[in-house]
Amino acid sequence: MSQFDNVSVVKEANVYFDGKCVSHGVIMPDGSRKSVGVILPAKLLFSTGAPEIMEILAGECKVTLAGETGARSYKAGDSFKVPGESSFQIEVSDTVHYVCHFG
Amino acid sequence: MSQFDNVSVVKEANVYFDGKCVSHGVIMPDGSRKSVGVILPAKLLFSTGAPEIMEILAGECKVTLAGETGARSYKAGDSFKVPGESSFQIEVSDTVHYVCHFG
Repeated sequence: MSQFDNVSVVKEANVYFDGKCVSHGVIMPDGSRKSVGVILPAKLLFSTGAPEIMEILAGECKVTLAGETGARSYKAGDSFKVPGESSFQIEVSDTVHYVCHFG
Repeated sequence: MSQFDNVSVVKEANVYFDGKCVSHGVIMPDGSRKSVGVILPAKLLFSTGAPEIMEILAGECKVTLAGETGARSYKAGDSFKVPGESSFQIEVSDTVHYVCHFG
């Protein structure tokens, strides 16, 4: 499924790290929240509030979760979970398109 | 209105100019198409297929339409029209958040 249907989308984007990450908020029919976004090639440290699942739609990256020592590689079709109140380092080699599922 | 309701949103973004412009496609309840996006500080030349109206939600830019000599300034709340099969040069001084209305 290449699109979300019957959703609300927030018009203004979230811009992080000087534009290395740009996302738009999406509110699902059941009220849950997701975001759709892009991370350009860079090495970035993201912090989480709520737990999240990052679903990779396209691109390639290596991710190191807080408390882990080794990075894992992810590409289109992969997902990874991040606990709430935590962080992860992501090294993007090929622009990542993602859906972030919160909660 | 800060969001579009009852719409479809394309999960993968459009990334232009090495990420200086990132947008997501939105399909309205009547089937018409828009995009929501961001243009980072840069001087860029965009080409249009269909005619479009660029609605500026936030940020500041100067725009020169094809065939015009002087740039006009736009900020939050402003819009400008671009003919189809044309182009415009945009110089963004403060990150622009926009809605592009096609057709």
